[in-house]
Amino acid sequence: MRKLIGERIIPTLGGDVLSSLSDAAPLPAIAGELAMTTDSFVVSPLFFPGGDIGSLAVNGTVNDLAVSGARPLYLTLSLILEEGLPISVLDRVLQSVAAAAVGGGVQVVAGDTKVVPRGAADGLFINTTGVGQLSKPIVAGPTALGEGDELIVSGPIGRHGMAVLCAREQLALEPPPTSDSAPLATAAEALRERLGPRLRAMRDATRGGVAAVLHEWAEACGLTMSIRDHDVPVSADVRGACELLGLDPLHVANEGTMVVAVEPGSGQAALEVLHALPGTAGATLIGQVTLRQLAPVTIQRTLGSEQPLDEPLGAMLPRIC
Amino acid sequence: MRKLIGERIIPTLGGDVLSSLSDAAPLPAIAGELAMTTDSFVVSPLFFPGGDIGSLAVNGTVNDLAVSGARPLYLTLSLILEEGLPISVLDRVLQSVAAAAVGGGVQVVAGDTKVVPRGAADGLFINTTGVGQLSKPIVAGPTALGEGDELIVSGPIGRHGMAVLCAREQLALEPPPTSDSAPLATAAEALRERLGPRLRAMRDATRGGVAAVLHEWAEACGLTMSIRDHDVPVSADVRGACELLGLDPLHVANEGTMVVAVEPGSGQAALEVLHALPGTAGATLIGQVTLRQLAPVTIQRTLGSEQPLDEPLGAMLPRIC
Repeated sequence: MRKLIGERIIPTLGGDVLSSLSDAAPLPAIAGELAMTTDSFVVSPLFFPGGDIGSLAVNGTVNDLAVSGARPLYLTLSLILEEGLPISVLDRVLQSVAAAAVGGGVQVVAGDTKVVPRGAADGLFINTTGVGQLSKPIVAGPTALGEGDELIVSGPIGRHGMAVLCAREQLALEPPPTSDSAPLATAAEALRERLGPRLRAMRDATRGGVAAVLHEWAEACGLTMSIRDHDVPVSADVRGACELLGLDPLHVANEGTMVVAVEPGSGQAALEVLHALPGTAGATLIGQVTLRQLAPVTIQRTLGSEQPLDEPLGAMLPRIC
Repeated sequence: MRKLIGERIIPTLGGDVLSSLSDAAPLPAIAGELAMTTDSFVVSPLFFPGGDIGSLAVNGTVNDLAVSGARPLYLTLSLILEEGLPISVLDRVLQSVAAAAVGGGVQVVAGDTKVVPRGAADGLFINTTGVGQLSKPIVAGPTALGEGDELIVSGPIGRHGMAVLCAREQLALEPPPTSDSAPLATAAEALRERLGPRLRAMRDATRGGVAAVLHEWAEACGLTMSIRDHDVPVSADVRGACELLGLDPLHVANEGTMVVAVEPGSGQAALEVLHALPGTAGATLIGQVTLRQLAPVTIQRTLGSEQPLDEPLGAMLPRIC
């Protein structure tokens, strides 16, 4: 174990703090309030178009901090390896972790590695836990949503879920959908700086997709989230794969795309901020918050009237992250 | 998933922060430097005499912070569940997590739950990541060890490893060895307060046991750790089980027992502190730091001369934590 850590993990993830190999990493003082989040990643397969479990594990935790209004600072990395996992696979994943940490502006400061016998875990599981610095003004969150607030998605939806599903089931679609796995920290910080308290809520639309976020927000504020199908960005490959499989892209997971709510009249300003950044150039205004109607989330289909948008149920796509 | 979290996890682990179910937990400012550590737990079986995976996951992370000279504050809890795990097992583990968090003085502030299909994980894996506040004076650590420093263990050794091994192999020893799984935060803080800079290093003797800690320390400072077999506390049940299985208790894992180094002449003061606390009443002075001899770690056996004490090699006892 000491050899594995010394020869494989430290040289790739480096950094003075991690290299000290003490029981706990000493970190400088952080001014003001903190945010902390944890996520375990069990995605299958480990590699998929647009990403892998390593970059996913970093981006997922960076994004949970970012959408909470925190600047991501430190990450811990814990690996559960199945006996027999090729070292070359571990190396690729660690390189991906290192690159994603640079991209997300975080430092990997502590780690742990466990090996379990063949059959006791499926290849490789990763836990990342992150600490960030909460910035003022603190984003109010979905309980503060009000009538007329404008709803935005930061880019084309459903890419991560479809990329993993197509890779797992070896559906030979051409071109294959690619994951949107990417850090949202820069976009979240730019929105906070430009909009201040006019920014009401942000959430990365992971498991359950955009529909799950809208349902959670509707429950939190007691209002209805009303969106227009026509304005929701979906790439041609994702739309094709979803139609083939009978899935709604609104229910499919994203890993670098967020839903944003801003106060009435601020949607255009938010779009300007997002369109100026490479990762969110495809952001669109998809609807608004209204007084509670018959359903917590409604969708105006291109042809036809407004319909309820169901909450995603069950594990439609297990092991997507 | 929302039902599982809402009905099982939140009611047991409660707390305002966790209950908010946001992407990241907002935490108050922490004065001064921090410490951060992570650990994944894959112990098999999940329940063993003296503990279970839940209390172990809390104590292990609390102890990594404590021996680093930090006051444990916040913990995240991430669960990977195998499909089919009985809810009653999850409930017992969560109750154990909750009780251990109280015992260790930490608050569970964020969590994550993943379910993987039957066969993809062995029952239940837990990751805990902890943040604590580093207290002044910061413990210097093993690179600061000097000739004549005194070495202490905080209680009878080898209990955790033997408890798990006997439970796993269903060795019907009477009485069965019980794990020492317990928080060391109070003992570590009491030592820091009483000894100040005279306290050189602390480390909980987990995987690889006391021998592994002594080898790491010898490597860090370039000196020899010289201990006396006769003074190392071993309970009768652990000694019996180790003899039966041909194991050296110095190589067996602990989960609530630490090795402590203090400057020359301070051993008695450290023992007074430890003997006054219930969890460390069995602490003893086991040896001292000497100029580098032939071996990095030596042991004076009861009968015979001083011998090298080998470093634990390989996975003698896999899945012990």
